[in-house]
Amino acid sequence: MQANLSTVLMDQEEINEIQQELGKASLMGKSLEQLIIDTDNYMALPLDVPGHSPAGGYAHNKHQQNGKYIDQAGRLFLITGDEKYAQFTANLLMQYADKYLKLGFQEQRNTNPPGRLFHQLLNEHVWLLYASLGYSCISHWLSATQRQEIIARLFIPLLDMSTVQYDFDFDRIHNHGIWAVASVAICGAAIGQDKYIDMSIHGLKGDDEEGGFLAQISKLFAPSGYYMEGPYYHRYAIRPLAMFAELVHRFRPELDIFNFKDQVIGKTIQAMLSTAYPNGVFPALNDASKTMDIKDEGVIIALSLFAKHYPENENILGMAKIQERVWVNGCGLVLSKAYEAKNKIEMPCLPSVELNEGRDGDKGAQGFIRMQNNTGDISQLVMNYGQHGMDHGHFDTLGLTYFNNNQEVLREYGFGRWVNVEPKFGGRYLDENKSYARQTIAHNLVTVDAGCQNSFDINTAEAKHGEPHFFIGNGNLQGMSAYAHDFYPGVTQQRTLLLVNHEQLAHPLLIDLFRLSSEETHQYDYALQYEGQIVRTNVELEHHNTLNSMGNDFGYQHLWNVAQGKAQDTTLVSWLQGQSYYTWLSASSSDDTLFCTRTGANDPSFNLRSETSLVLRRQARNSLFASVIETHGYFNEAIEASLDARGKIQHINIIGFNDHASIIEVYGEGIDLTIMVNNAPDATVDSQTTIEFNQQTYSWQGFLAVESKRS
Amino acid sequence: MQANLSTVLMDQEEINEIQQELGKASLMGKSLEQLIIDTDNYMALPLDVPGHSPAGGYAHNKHQQNGKYIDQAGRLFLITGDEKYAQFTANLLMQYADKYLKLGFQEQRNTNPPGRLFHQLLNEHVWLLYASLGYSCISHWLSATQRQEIIARLFIPLLDMSTVQYDFDFDRIHNHGIWAVASVAICGAAIGQDKYIDMSIHGLKGDDEEGGFLAQISKLFAPSGYYMEGPYYHRYAIRPLAMFAELVHRFRPELDIFNFKDQVIGKTIQAMLSTAYPNGVFPALNDASKTMDIKDEGVIIALSLFAKHYPENENILGMAKIQERVWVNGCGLVLSKAYEAKNKIEMPCLPSVELNEGRDGDKGAQGFIRMQNNTGDISQLVMNYGQHGMDHGHFDTLGLTYFNNNQEVLREYGFGRWVNVEPKFGGRYLDENKSYARQTIAHNLVTVDAGCQNSFDINTAEAKHGEPHFFIGNGNLQGMSAYAHDFYPGVTQQRTLLLVNHEQLAHPLLIDLFRLSSEETHQYDYALQYEGQIVRTNVELEHHNTLNSMGNDFGYQHLWNVAQGKAQDTTLVSWLQGQSYYTWLSASSSDDTLFCTRTGANDPSFNLRSETSLVLRRQARNSLFASVIETHGYFNEAIEASLDARGKIQHINIIGFNDHASIIEVYGEGIDLTIMVNNAPDATVDSQTTIEFNQQTYSWQGFLAVESKRS
Repeated sequence: MQANLSTVLMDQEEINEIQQELGKASLMGKSLEQLIIDTDNYMALPLDVPGHSPAGGYAHNKHQQNGKYIDQAGRLFLITGDEKYAQFTANLLMQYADKYLKLGFQEQRNTNPPGRLFHQLLNEHVWLLYASLGYSCISHWLSATQRQEIIARLFIPLLDMSTVQYDFDFDRIHNHGIWAVASVAICGAAIGQDKYIDMSIHGLKGDDEEGGFLAQISKLFAPSGYYMEGPYYHRYAIRPLAMFAELVHRFRPELDIFNFKDQVIGKTIQAMLSTAYPNGVFPALNDASKTMDIKDEGVIIALSLFAKHYPENENILGMAKIQERVWVNGCGLVLSKAYEAKNKIEMPCLPSVELNEGRDGDKGAQGFIRMQNNTGDISQLVMNYGQHGMDHGHFDTLGLTYFNNNQEVLREYGFGRWVNVEPKFGGRYLDENKSYARQTIAHNLVTVDAGCQNSFDINTAEAKHGEPHFFIGNGNLQGMSAYAHDFYPGVTQQRTLLLVNHEQLAHPLLIDLFRLSSEETHQYDYALQYEGQIVRTNVELEHHNTLNSMGNDFGYQHLWNVAQGKAQDTTLVSWLQGQSYYTWLSASSSDDTLFCTRTGANDPSFNLRSETSLVLRRQARNSLFASVIETHGYFNEAIEASLDARGKIQHINIIGFNDHASIIEVYGEGIDLTIMVNNAPDATVDSQTTIEFNQQTYSWQGFLAVESKRS
Repeated sequence: MQANLSTVLMDQEEINEIQQELGKASLMGKSLEQLIIDTDNYMALPLDVPGHSPAGGYAHNKHQQNGKYIDQAGRLFLITGDEKYAQFTANLLMQYADKYLKLGFQEQRNTNPPGRLFHQLLNEHVWLLYASLGYSCISHWLSATQRQEIIARLFIPLLDMSTVQYDFDFDRIHNHGIWAVASVAICGAAIGQDKYIDMSIHGLKGDDEEGGFLAQISKLFAPSGYYMEGPYYHRYAIRPLAMFAELVHRFRPELDIFNFKDQVIGKTIQAMLSTAYPNGVFPALNDASKTMDIKDEGVIIALSLFAKHYPENENILGMAKIQERVWVNGCGLVLSKAYEAKNKIEMPCLPSVELNEGRDGDKGAQGFIRMQNNTGDISQLVMNYGQHGMDHGHFDTLGLTYFNNNQEVLREYGFGRWVNVEPKFGGRYLDENKSYARQTIAHNLVTVDAGCQNSFDINTAEAKHGEPHFFIGNGNLQGMSAYAHDFYPGVTQQRTLLLVNHEQLAHPLLIDLFRLSSEETHQYDYALQYEGQIVRTNVELEHHNTLNSMGNDFGYQHLWNVAQGKAQDTTLVSWLQGQSYYTWLSASSSDDTLFCTRTGANDPSFNLRSETSLVLRRQARNSLFASVIETHGYFNEAIEASLDARGKIQHINIIGFNDHASIIEVYGEGIDLTIMVNNAPDATVDSQTTIEFNQQTYSWQGFLAVESKRS
């Protein structure tokens, strides 16, 4: 069809092979079909290169889309040979070349410098990356005059803006920085100006220190590959990272990029993937959307890249099954073929993993525990005992989220933001993000004295991190434990979370031991964020006839106190979420108070979602909140079926706890468990613990033991 | 495999043909596969015939399931020839024969007489029907002794209970009565005792008057086929109705049952189907679940029956597409083959229809209007201007529900009940069903003086019905209008609902003109039940720091007054539900007050779902609530896309209204509509109306006209 050519990210051989997939039911075939339908639909709209608009407004969206379709149509021209795609790509690029310099710079709205098309330079870089990719696919088809015009009036001004005018932003170790270097390198490659590739790889100074891709990937990730802002930001940075890595591989093979720094590219992709819930949605760590998942464009590209350059892995194929498509590129082709070669692809069941944080891996960790029941359902437990997460961090160290039966059960609120919903403050972060979403009380953990960890001070929080105690990620008894020192002055916290598969129970039992120590008496609020309908409780609740907020600050001002009552020895609340029942049982006493809350107080613009929580309040110096969550039964309203709405666990007792150990008893129908945890920071797998509570001696080896009396 | 035989509802030829579908991808093939998997899974559990338990408890559920699987396994024995199914069916039947008479009668819990297996005779009849069907499939395989035992110790006692002990319940024109006669007839046929067939068809007296199937189907349905309790109850009655009709067809062909009474069987099935939303879910008219849909077993059976005995119809095939299966029976075979014969089956797009109520069709009607936009999305409007609906009726005459974009937008609460959720009051109706769900304020209409229609008195309500004014069910301007006289003393109400396809709008525009007339001043509360997040409003809302309920009675005691503010000339509220934006604009003034409410007040057991409404309050004698609802834009959080969050309509003005006519103006971006409605009960399609408001004359022919100034 055309001369043998090499675009920035595909060569002729790959193009030929991708062509063979047209019309096939392979992942690549289906991806191509989607790409064609999507691109054709867009091409059917009137071509428009507008001026300025607010973020989320028409022009903003249109520029974003134009950039995306320049790339898509460019690739489709090479793959299908249909010149309509080249013509469309050329028309758009020529219009941008004509208009770009005539557009003044946008107004600056935040710390990000403004571009000409967008308010944020970041968006301009995303646009440049896609426009450059599209250009590289059709440059041989353009006339020399057209090429000249596009380069001189569009790409060079953009490159100058990035590398000269805003050079301070280009040389920056930051996730936005990856977009900057990737777009400049790809544009440089597309227009044949290699200096841009090199300054993007090595930084403006060329020293691989202050900036450039190699410095970034060396410094942004922990040894585990974890990115400190969490998966929501990671998946956004991974897109240019993966594309740039593929470019380095093609243009600078001598750098052996996929083995660079102990395979940091592969490791960080895998770390990101390993945070996802079984349904592919990312836990909303830090400021994050509740719905971002592995179908995101960046994750699709990263997974395809991983499949090509790293060893085959069943879970990668399982994730491709969730994604249902691949990157239309040589990498995606490899993944598509590996997928086709298997008879049956199972849904992914990722191993439990502890991802360390900090450049040296010594700033705490994020723990992910997964356990499958015998019907294949995966329970996933996430605990944050790592770093704060910079400007987007939430004050929730030792917080947890919990997922099973295809839903998040103990829930993260996510960010206070309606992304791109223009009437909601231009789609930007809302005040309630600070006043509620990032506060400690919005999470699943203990709030002390109705305040916030580190007094909601980012600098204080950034200087601290959780301290890992143990992590056991295999078998039918898994668990993790960590400490947080002085996140509230004078208070030491330790949380130990266990998942136990028990023959009497349909799903793993979650055991939560949240221990606080202080020399002073404090008010401890143990909170669980749940969703659904309360089915029963053994607490005599006083339902308020008039609702007041739970407090005046630190997020409490947004919580309605809906009902409260004296706790029981074992406080029990059951609720129905979707098709599943959950029962929480917590060791308590009538000195404790249970509150049922709902968000929405002091929310004049209805910015918050209306959500519910349980808060168990206690005054104490040293205290252990010992709870279990049982997952049980089945409800299907449409067919009017309900099974096992009550569950089997009946009691949870604290035998004793101190700085050395905690001993708990859990019993119910056919269940009698003793849980023993070593609380000493210097414990090892070999530690022999012997401790006496109430004239009874408990002994075990290692961090923990669970003994079952009846089974 | 076995001798040529005829079971109650299948003959050898049908069995042979169904066998041919095993392993095929046809609807019948897939239905068989599901039936086999489901039955095999159940057969893998230990066989158990328990005693008594509360409703929703183990024994209750187990008996229900046993009955169902006796039938399923029986049919599978004939279709697959595998004797394991016959053995399983025989084992269960023999255990029931052994135990049945030893079980005492259950305790009576409501007006329904108790059975031995269940608290309600109704459940016993359902069980009998399925057990008889299963028996009829294996009786030739059983030994004479086994047959004798099952008949003498199980079926005869059941038949005696139905037709002798509880004869008053057998001869009853009621939806439960259909289960009684169907189960007795099917059992009679299965054991070869024809008298039971005849008494079931003609009643115990044999006069086709007080009881029996023919009397029931003659008297239960309106001429339109509508069943007064609404689709939730209709779909439950349709299951035995369809099975009994098939039995009559086979055993008493001389009755020509499918042409009986002007094809009442076909008509009532079609009426039931024609209420469903585009996604197959039934609007929750009266006490009803929000999730009951056409995948219900009864609807699957009825659709298959319809497909065999009535003319082919594209929408029947479209509904089969939603159901994804057919009745495993000769009727289902016909539907499966008709389905296979088509190349492409579209989703159903049912015509708009007005279903009259009352035995003579003169007790008002239920109106269903459907309009498709140019992307194929169907907007459906439902208005109740018929009868009260007996004991399960809600006090919501002139109430509406509205559906588009695959979701219910203006919502019905449904019943206050957690069906089969044992800890929630045994799964029975909750107090909140009366105190909230059935009250006028829980619906989408006007509540007068914070009371309830007909003072929540069923007898008063049963004596009244809505009065139809007009119904226009075709084209790009559709509408319906009706009156309600004295549902509040001295107040006449008229509601006119229009759907208009307008070239400037992505979806049909809903126009709602709710007019009230009285000689006294009243408080009128116009309420809309919505779901989702408020995006913007032009009302300065005072958000309360302390929440109080909206009132003390008639459902108001369950509503929190979350926020309130003075209305605007055009009061506007936009919200986001799922992936779609909705904007409500209503002609009002600063004398009116807008309230934002949330359910949950005075709900000590968390029995209510937490839901939201908008209430526009006005003091007036004669008043017109003129509103529009615009459906616009698109939001997808996962991909962070938002389009057109504001919509195009800007104003709605009332030009004038009185008993003769209402004139309204609606305008916005590229939109300037004048809506003219004739309010006179004696209007016809030929009426010429000329009326003057504000020195301007408006003239049109027929019930209504919509003029567009700019298009």
